[in-house]
Amino acid sequence: MDIKNKNIEELKSLCQDIRDRILEVVSKNGGHLSSNIGAVEIIVAMHYVFDSKKDPFIFDVSHQSYAHKLLTNRWEEFSTLRQINGISGYTKPNESKEDYFVAGHSSTSISLAVGAAKAIKLKGEDRLPVVLIGDGSMSAGMAYEAINELGDRKYPCVIILNDNEMSISKPIGAMSKYLSQLMAGQSYQKFKARVNKLLEYAPDSAAYLAKRFEEGFKLITPGMFFEELGLEYIGPVDGHSIKSLIDSFEIAKKLNKPVIIHAQTLKGKGYEKAEGHNASWHGVGPFNIKNGEAIKKSSRKNATKIYSENLLTLASKYTNIVGVTAAMPDGTGMNLLIDKFPDRFWDVAIAEQHAVTSMAAMAKEGFKPYITIYSTFMQRAYDQVIHDCAIMNLNVVFAMDRAGIVGEDGETHQGAFDISYLNAIPNISMCAPRDEQSFKEILEYSYIHKGPLAIRYPRGSFHLEDEIASKKIAFAKSELLVDNKANISFIGYGNGVGKAYKVMQHLEDMKINLFDLVFAKPLDKEFLINLAKTSKKWYVFSDSAKKGGIGSILSTFLQENKIFDVEIVSFEYEDSFIFHGNSELVEKKLEIDVEGIVKKISNNKKY
Amino acid sequence: MDIKNKNIEELKSLCQDIRDRILEVVSKNGGHLSSNIGAVEIIVAMHYVFDSKKDPFIFDVSHQSYAHKLLTNRWEEFSTLRQINGISGYTKPNESKEDYFVAGHSSTSISLAVGAAKAIKLKGEDRLPVVLIGDGSMSAGMAYEAINELGDRKYPCVIILNDNEMSISKPIGAMSKYLSQLMAGQSYQKFKARVNKLLEYAPDSAAYLAKRFEEGFKLITPGMFFEELGLEYIGPVDGHSIKSLIDSFEIAKKLNKPVIIHAQTLKGKGYEKAEGHNASWHGVGPFNIKNGEAIKKSSRKNATKIYSENLLTLASKYTNIVGVTAAMPDGTGMNLLIDKFPDRFWDVAIAEQHAVTSMAAMAKEGFKPYITIYSTFMQRAYDQVIHDCAIMNLNVVFAMDRAGIVGEDGETHQGAFDISYLNAIPNISMCAPRDEQSFKEILEYSYIHKGPLAIRYPRGSFHLEDEIASKKIAFAKSELLVDNKANISFIGYGNGVGKAYKVMQHLEDMKINLFDLVFAKPLDKEFLINLAKTSKKWYVFSDSAKKGGIGSILSTFLQENKIFDVEIVSFEYEDSFIFHGNSELVEKKLEIDVEGIVKKISNNKKY
Repeated sequence: MDIKNKNIEELKSLCQDIRDRILEVVSKNGGHLSSNIGAVEIIVAMHYVFDSKKDPFIFDVSHQSYAHKLLTNRWEEFSTLRQINGISGYTKPNESKEDYFVAGHSSTSISLAVGAAKAIKLKGEDRLPVVLIGDGSMSAGMAYEAINELGDRKYPCVIILNDNEMSISKPIGAMSKYLSQLMAGQSYQKFKARVNKLLEYAPDSAAYLAKRFEEGFKLITPGMFFEELGLEYIGPVDGHSIKSLIDSFEIAKKLNKPVIIHAQTLKGKGYEKAEGHNASWHGVGPFNIKNGEAIKKSSRKNATKIYSENLLTLASKYTNIVGVTAAMPDGTGMNLLIDKFPDRFWDVAIAEQHAVTSMAAMAKEGFKPYITIYSTFMQRAYDQVIHDCAIMNLNVVFAMDRAGIVGEDGETHQGAFDISYLNAIPNISMCAPRDEQSFKEILEYSYIHKGPLAIRYPRGSFHLEDEIASKKIAFAKSELLVDNKANISFIGYGNGVGKAYKVMQHLEDMKINLFDLVFAKPLDKEFLINLAKTSKKWYVFSDSAKKGGIGSILSTFLQENKIFDVEIVSFEYEDSFIFHGNSELVEKKLEIDVEGIVKKISNNKKY
Repeated sequence: MDIKNKNIEELKSLCQDIRDRILEVVSKNGGHLSSNIGAVEIIVAMHYVFDSKKDPFIFDVSHQSYAHKLLTNRWEEFSTLRQINGISGYTKPNESKEDYFVAGHSSTSISLAVGAAKAIKLKGEDRLPVVLIGDGSMSAGMAYEAINELGDRKYPCVIILNDNEMSISKPIGAMSKYLSQLMAGQSYQKFKARVNKLLEYAPDSAAYLAKRFEEGFKLITPGMFFEELGLEYIGPVDGHSIKSLIDSFEIAKKLNKPVIIHAQTLKGKGYEKAEGHNASWHGVGPFNIKNGEAIKKSSRKNATKIYSENLLTLASKYTNIVGVTAAMPDGTGMNLLIDKFPDRFWDVAIAEQHAVTSMAAMAKEGFKPYITIYSTFMQRAYDQVIHDCAIMNLNVVFAMDRAGIVGEDGETHQGAFDISYLNAIPNISMCAPRDEQSFKEILEYSYIHKGPLAIRYPRGSFHLEDEIASKKIAFAKSELLVDNKANISFIGYGNGVGKAYKVMQHLEDMKINLFDLVFAKPLDKEFLINLAKTSKKWYVFSDSAKKGGIGSILSTFLQENKIFDVEIVSFEYEDSFIFHGNSELVEKKLEIDVEGIVKKISNNKKY
């Protein structure tokens, strides 16, 4: 869409059209709402002043990039948002050349801009990296690492800080407070207070002088923080005023330096129900535009809720239980805990590294931390798990939500790798619940577990609804669930057990025993060696990557125990990133849904 | 040692004794020199004002904690520094209760202090976390994540910023510049310049007023950056003046807030040869105290040098080659490249996350980045490898130095896990050189490789000295090196090939074929399937963890290809963290040195 010839009024009208389109599609397909409708003017102004055909437009997390998609030839296709083969909820170069980079995790944008700027400089091109980053993303250390180089080496680059005083949930942290002070002009107030304090020891005339300087101070103080780090600061700017945005972007464009433009917006702007609300309108499912009510899909209790409710019970009983979330209080259910025990549970902002290591110290002090982070985001704290928790063999629990396929968020968010990357770490144990009852028992067990313990559980509800009574969970013990005196074994891990159970229902002519591995590390050696004596075919069910996953762990186990007559067939994920779309449809397409697996097993030639 | 009753002169004399002891032992055993002799007064003052029996003393990286060790009942034992069963070069709770936490990687200290402070508050105890962190460690984002929470929640805690204007190598980044300005009083100068600029538009009298305020500004401006983030700032303080340090620590102790004390020191202080020098005296081998000359041990070319020399040749030929190191220009050999091509190779400070992601953008722009990071530190950028490089399938090379056992640095530094954690990532390929010649060929190949490629190589020199002529490296191709028409196969990966070769020399009565896997991912499927037809016993040699390592990868391969008559025995690392000490002695103790493996293979009953 060519918008460079439009006047301000036309641009305003365009913003309205974009908002309407976003609301229309998101209310049907679900998606990120408030961040997207809050950033419309900024993105329109970006396209007016800069050129996404040439300038790298870098959207941090890119969950706010819908307006950009609509402005770059995807107006009609946008109706397929987040559906299989449809438009991604994030920027994706495969989808459009004007999507510069993949993003889905936070705070990569400034690093990408630094890299792009280095490339542009080497190539001698006339292009300018333009970053759009939310205030929430400014808490992650990565953003600071990038500013540290950028402010030193001074590559030309424009960073638009979209400040809606919200991370996904409430704003957390000193940076957030500092930004609020800038917005409210309090930075100057604070500075003036320091001067006044000083004046107590100064000559009388000084009070008068200070007054004369007042206006001057107002100009000096905003943004000193960023300027100390070597960035030019412009702001605060009204992020819903097209005119102000265009003016400040034009200034930034000419500076030939790294510039941060501090734009103030209202999250959810333009949809009354969402305005000013935070987490509840961040990521939404389909809803009724008129009354804002969710069009509910499932009434079953999801794993997150099972986790938080049971952790709440435990935390009420054991006062040394503490916990942390990294900016996902709603997504992880930790809001329940933070509300009830604000002195023992914390949201530390998007800061997975700090979340893990700060809890390591609490474990050392005798507390029992529940570090509650999505599987995909735990990748951010991999070294902290190894270096700060595992080496000291501390009693911490990693509660890893969103393990397995997460659906519409797609490849950046799939919880596919945690088993593989954690298994290599000495001292760590790994287990997974299959249903509500076993989750409750695993959590009870986790409290007494010595050493780091990682528990993984899926997005949404378990396949199983407590169909199978459980024995008591015990360390490194697997469980026989259905005994049909069979040679063929279905071995499930976590939500894989439920899938195995469902597959069994479709294979009534086959004699199959069903097992729950329960612990992926350490393995139940005695159990597996005995199993190998009677069962020579093991089908493995787990929501995880094949490389380093349960099938691989069991294959290695067989080799190490010199068992050569057992065949393993794993229905884990093949070695490629998994696309976005409704989880069930994604599994169907990958032929790892119940139907697909039934077909594979039935087809004896192939398996 | 009770030092609380000593007077200043006695403390000064104690500092001299500590310095002498450190020099004496480090000159014999090797170790971190300049950071340790530079921090003596700070640590003595810490022990004078605070109480390490009670207060958590948290040493960032902890490579500067020797004085602390000497002050806490380890004066004699210190002679065993970095030797097997001896004193660790880092803090280690197993070694002393007064070592609060394990550290070896950078920038975890403030997170640990936040966790400790939360615990102390909940327990209602009268203890104060005391952090010692170098200016180099302030570049990693993790430190900032912790400050972001600390400055907001205001837990009492003392952070001593030991500023010697040096990271391991040269100081990099905006933060470093800011700190230098504070030291030089330039923060005030800069501020005054801003005021002066303002005065151009102000009344005449203002100039006079500004002058009157001068002294005041000096008091207002230092540390504003930290104060904006919610920390009290004290400094700069002379970090070699026991008196100044004690005075400022006493003030900080009483504040009941988070305080940062900015202490200025000279790295290498007290040993003339090392004073003011940076990288060359950071980590040292044994040396002659009198003339400062290294007592050389090996004349063979190490893998780092082979890497950097060959990369230099390539970079001279192909101008789109760029590269990065995260504060390890000397350790990785990237100094060679940075010196020759300062516009194409960068040290981005301790900032592995940013290093990886900024290079991802350069790859997108058509450059070929060589991201040169130790295996253990790549753990810090795990998510960036996945999210920013692998999803986009970008042409980046991860050159992973220090793969395998690293020796004296011990458990925090072993390069044991990279194969396991990278193997799970789609699109990534992994290969490893066995000697100088194959490294050269692999580097040549890497330039044309499409997608992310990880190359691992050991600390020090390869076992092999080009004894075995190499075929041309080709993608996903393994190689038969020694053909004895044997049933038994030795399969090596990387430096494991050399070990396998040496083991063969000791087993002359056995018929063995020697193979180089070359690529751990993707595997050479055809080669392995054919091998399985003739060879039923595979011994695996690789400097990596068994969990997820080469043995596991091959075991999984056999299962997936329904090969059930091949037995794998792997000589990789068992599932525990590997202690410090001379690499050869460590391998011996683990029974994975040549002798130990020969014994195991000879003992047919066991294998």
